[in-house]
Amino acid sequence: MAKRRVTAAVLLIGDEILSGRTQDVNLQTIAKFLAPLGIQVVEARVVADVPEAIVAAVNDLRRANDYVFTTGGIGPTHDDKTADAVAAAFGAPIGVRDDAKAILEKHYGLDNLNDARLKMARIPEGARLIANPVSRAPGFQLDNVFVMAGVPSIMRGMLEDVGKRLEGGAVVEARTVRAKGVREGNIAQALEALEQASPAVTFGSYPWFSPDGYGLHLVARSSDPAALDKAAVDLMQLLRNAGGAPESVDAD
Amino acid sequence: MAKRRVTAAVLLIGDEILSGRTQDVNLQTIAKFLAPLGIQVVEARVVADVPEAIVAAVNDLRRANDYVFTTGGIGPTHDDKTADAVAAAFGAPIGVRDDAKAILEKHYGLDNLNDARLKMARIPEGARLIANPVSRAPGFQLDNVFVMAGVPSIMRGMLEDVGKRLEGGAVVEARTVRAKGVREGNIAQALEALEQASPAVTFGSYPWFSPDGYGLHLVARSSDPAALDKAAVDLMQLLRNAGGAPESVDAD
Repeated sequence: MAKRRVTAAVLLIGDEILSGRTQDVNLQTIAKFLAPLGIQVVEARVVADVPEAIVAAVNDLRRANDYVFTTGGIGPTHDDKTADAVAAAFGAPIGVRDDAKAILEKHYGLDNLNDARLKMARIPEGARLIANPVSRAPGFQLDNVFVMAGVPSIMRGMLEDVGKRLEGGAVVEARTVRAKGVREGNIAQALEALEQASPAVTFGSYPWFSPDGYGLHLVARSSDPAALDKAAVDLMQLLRNAGGAPESVDAD
Repeated sequence: MAKRRVTAAVLLIGDEILSGRTQDVNLQTIAKFLAPLGIQVVEARVVADVPEAIVAAVNDLRRANDYVFTTGGIGPTHDDKTADAVAAAFGAPIGVRDDAKAILEKHYGLDNLNDARLKMARIPEGARLIANPVSRAPGFQLDNVFVMAGVPSIMRGMLEDVGKRLEGGAVVEARTVRAKGVREGNIAQALEALEQASPAVTFGSYPWFSPDGYGLHLVARSSDPAALDKAAVDLMQLLRNAGGAPESVDAD
């Protein structure tokens, strides 16, 4: 029996991404982490540190997807509003929880555990903690929503604890072929015909430009390994027919 | 009279961003382009090359914001679905338009203007073209929605034509101070007090970690220059009080 499609949404929370101050990298990290588990990111949003915006996005995304992954807004400062907003999205009570507090006490020492740091122990009722191997203050999972830190190194650490809780479906793999000197307009019709002849595969076309020329990356994606192998061969032929000298650029 | 707040949303369209294949950079480019014009990006979304997803996002975002900027999905291949989806979002007819076709004819020559390339001349009725100084195929503006290419160099080129059509409001400027060896938990209470005492300013706190240490960036944002100057001084003092040796990291 074919495995089902399992979907995820990513919600990036923080004024600094919307202002352009910070270049997000967490979306790409999460997408690449989930893909081999058989979970596809199908939507992402970026919202400001505004409770109403976070609540609305969490509720939209958790209802439409199997999983939601949030990053950002769980630190000790006043602009960290994610934990309370996620609790509000679920209508769950929230307060300082003993298990989270114990983690912070151990890390900071009781003398340094001021009110600001205690804020990082505010965990919604019913949530399960997510271990933070980098800076200790935990994330949490509430139902299908995983709430993680925004700092990329900490977020990556938290994903390790999250991975084993996820149930994936069909793994979508990709093959990429590259050709220099070929333009999209010269292969578009052949590519569309190939897509129509390959029901188990989706194809994408990504032009590139660089100081030494231009060309295309053509990508085939499928959860059917045999169909994908055939698609890669078909793409090479398609590019040869267009006068290109294609090469596979897959890592393996 | 204080200028009003003018808001924008960014809609990134493309499977390749959601799969992690491509690292988006357009959101940051657009945010930094709009800020000095007095337009704040308050929300962003990433959707796949799926017409229904594009239509829903365009309609949500254009109703909630002064401007919407989309990137991606306006090339000649079958996976480029943005133009038709934006037309559908507005209920506008769409077809190959003479002015857009003339641009492509001039660039490609009549012999090379095949059906795939002609697809790039599909422009919704009532839309105004956006000049593409890089690869010629135009974007378009329909009401408050600006539809641009996904390739970053082309998107940047299109922004030049877009800028003069925008009416900005209050310009929000930022000041950033940096201190090594200071932790968020040690300044969070003072920062919250400062925010409460500074109604015209918002403050953000962004920890950094690197092989040679850790520290904070504290950012003040305001559309009131005098309040912002004071906030920068206040942030320096706040960090000194926490034992740091702060420095301003603003470009100017």
